[in-house]
Amino acid sequence: MITYHDVARAYEVVQPVVHKTPLLCSRTLNGLTGNEVFFKAENFQRVGAFKIRGAYYKISSLTEEERRRGIVAHSSGNHAQGVALAAKLLGVRATVVMPKTSPSIKVRATKEYGAEVRFCEDSSDAREAMAQQLQREQGYIPVPPYDDDFILAGQGTVGIEVAQDFPSIEYLLVPVGGGGLIAGTAVAIKHVIPHVKVIGVETEPANDCYQSFRKREIVRIPPPKTIADGIRTQSVGQRTFELIMKYVDDMVTVKDEQVVEMMRFFLQRMKIVVEPTGAVAPAAVYHNVLGISGKRICAIISGGNVDPTLLKSLL
Amino acid sequence: MITYHDVARAYEVVQPVVHKTPLLCSRTLNGLTGNEVFFKAENFQRVGAFKIRGAYYKISSLTEEERRRGIVAHSSGNHAQGVALAAKLLGVRATVVMPKTSPSIKVRATKEYGAEVRFCEDSSDAREAMAQQLQREQGYIPVPPYDDDFILAGQGTVGIEVAQDFPSIEYLLVPVGGGGLIAGTAVAIKHVIPHVKVIGVETEPANDCYQSFRKREIVRIPPPKTIADGIRTQSVGQRTFELIMKYVDDMVTVKDEQVVEMMRFFLQRMKIVVEPTGAVAPAAVYHNVLGISGKRICAIISGGNVDPTLLKSLL
Repeated sequence: MITYHDVARAYEVVQPVVHKTPLLCSRTLNGLTGNEVFFKAENFQRVGAFKIRGAYYKISSLTEEERRRGIVAHSSGNHAQGVALAAKLLGVRATVVMPKTSPSIKVRATKEYGAEVRFCEDSSDAREAMAQQLQREQGYIPVPPYDDDFILAGQGTVGIEVAQDFPSIEYLLVPVGGGGLIAGTAVAIKHVIPHVKVIGVETEPANDCYQSFRKREIVRIPPPKTIADGIRTQSVGQRTFELIMKYVDDMVTVKDEQVVEMMRFFLQRMKIVVEPTGAVAPAAVYHNVLGISGKRICAIISGGNVDPTLLKSLL
Repeated sequence: MITYHDVARAYEVVQPVVHKTPLLCSRTLNGLTGNEVFFKAENFQRVGAFKIRGAYYKISSLTEEERRRGIVAHSSGNHAQGVALAAKLLGVRATVVMPKTSPSIKVRATKEYGAEVRFCEDSSDAREAMAQQLQREQGYIPVPPYDDDFILAGQGTVGIEVAQDFPSIEYLLVPVGGGGLIAGTAVAIKHVIPHVKVIGVETEPANDCYQSFRKREIVRIPPPKTIADGIRTQSVGQRTFELIMKYVDDMVTVKDEQVVEMMRFFLQRMKIVVEPTGAVAPAAVYHNVLGISGKRICAIISGGNVDPTLLKSLL
C-alpha cells in the first residue's frame, strides 16, 4: 500500500510539469447549499484532467530499457490523453487502446499528442484484453489507468494541493471510477489533515464502488450506462479498493440528471466547462446528498473534456 | 479628467465587494503566438463582467437623498446587471432600460438582481432617450454606462489588479465600447507601469473608436451589427475620448469570425465560457493583429455572459 511519502515523492517529480490548479468558489452556490464550497479545478489541468499527474509519474519511473520499448495504455479518454502527453514530454512511444464510443474530442487530442490510437469494444474487459495482447506481442510496457502504485501516487498529488490551499477543509468529495484519484488523494490528505472526511461519489448507474464499499468486497457490474464516461469502469482495482476501505469515510451516488444540472450551473453561472465525470462530485454538493450545512467542503472537478455535441445538447 | 488617485480611491471602495479575478494562460496559445499571454478573467467577476466595479463605485458615491430617489441606467446587458447588483447591495431601487435585442440571459439576470427592466429599440439614441425620460419624470439619478468620472474610476480598478499581478507586462489589450474600461484602465496602469502599451480593440463593424482615434475627433456610426453585443455603442463618450487620446497607444480591429474562433478556443481548450465582447481583445492576440512576438501581453476578457443559443451555435 502506498503512503503519504510516496505521494510526496511523486509531487516532487510532477510539480514542475503539471499546473497547480485553482480552487474556485461561487457565492450563489454557497448560498444555495449553506456550506462553504470550493472546487478543485482539474479541468484547467494540462490535457484538461488530473490524469497527467499519474501518467507522468509512472512513465518517468520506467527504466531506460523500458522507455525504449514503448508503452501501452487503455482508457475511455482522459488517461489516454495524460499518457499521450506524458510520453511525448518524456520522449517515449505510446499506443493507446480506446473504446470506440470515446468522446471524439478525447480521441483527437490523444492523437494530437502523438500517440497511436487502437479502438476496441466498450467494456473494461475488451480494453484490458487488447492492451494485454499488445503488451505480449509488441513488448510494450503497460501504463495502467489506476491499479498501480506509481499511478496512485501521482493522482494523489491533487490531495497535497488541496491540503495546501484549503487547510480548514472538513469534507473532500471525489469522483470514483477505478478509484485511483480517490485512493491517492485520500492517502495524501488524511496524512496532512487527519480529521477530514473523504467521500467517494459515483452516478447511480455506475455504483460498483458504492456496492463494494457496503459489502466490503469488490463488486463487479456490467458496463454501466451513465453520462459520466470517465467512470464507466466495471469495478475498482485491488490496490485502490484496499486504500478506499482504509481511508475513505463514505460513498454516495448522484443521478445522471443531477450531473447535467451541475454542468449547466458551471457553464452558465461559473463560466467554466466541466465534463460529466468532472461534475459528479460537485453534483453531490450542489444537491446536498450528504445533508450537511455550515461545513467547509472541497469537491474535485476531475476534468473538462466534453464532447461539443454533448455540450450543445445541454444548452 | 480622472487621475490614478481617483482609481486608487475607487479601489478602496470596490475591493471588499468585487472578486480579484485571476490571470489565466495557455501554453498552447503561447506556442501559437510566440508571446507570453495572460487573460484577465473578468468573466469570473460578480455578475459575470467588470461592470460591477464602476456601478458599485458610482452608486456608493451618491448622497443619502439621491439614493432614496432611486437610480436609472441603460445598457445592452452587463452594465444593467452591474447596476442591478450594486443597487441591491447598497439598498437602492434601480430601473434599467435595455434594448429589446439584449441576450435573454442578461435580461433575466438583471431582473433576478431585483431591478425593474424597461425595453427600448436597439440603438444608443433610443436607450438614452428613454433613460432621460425616466430621469425627468421619476426623478431617478442616472448611472451612465461609461461617460462619468466615478464609473471610469471604478472600471479602472481592473488596471490596478493587472499591474499588481503582472508587473512585467508590455502590452495591455482592452475591448472598446463606450470606452469606460479602456480609459479607466489606461489611466491606472500607465501610472504604475509607464512604458506599457495600451491597445484598444473593436470588431470591424463597430470600429467607431478606431475611426475617432485616427481622425482625432469623435466619430459616430450607425448602430453596428456585430456579434460583440457589449460594444454596439455608436460612439465613445467625451470624457472617455479625452483619456483615450491621452493614454491609449493604438486602436486595432478584429473580424467577427475571429471573435468566434477565439470563443471556441476558450471553450474547448481553456475550458472557460467567454461572451463575444469578452473575446474581442483576446482575438487580437490569438490572431496576432499587432504582429509582435516575444512580448508579455495581457488581454482583458471583459465578461462571460453568453446567451445559451449563441453558445450552442458555436459548438
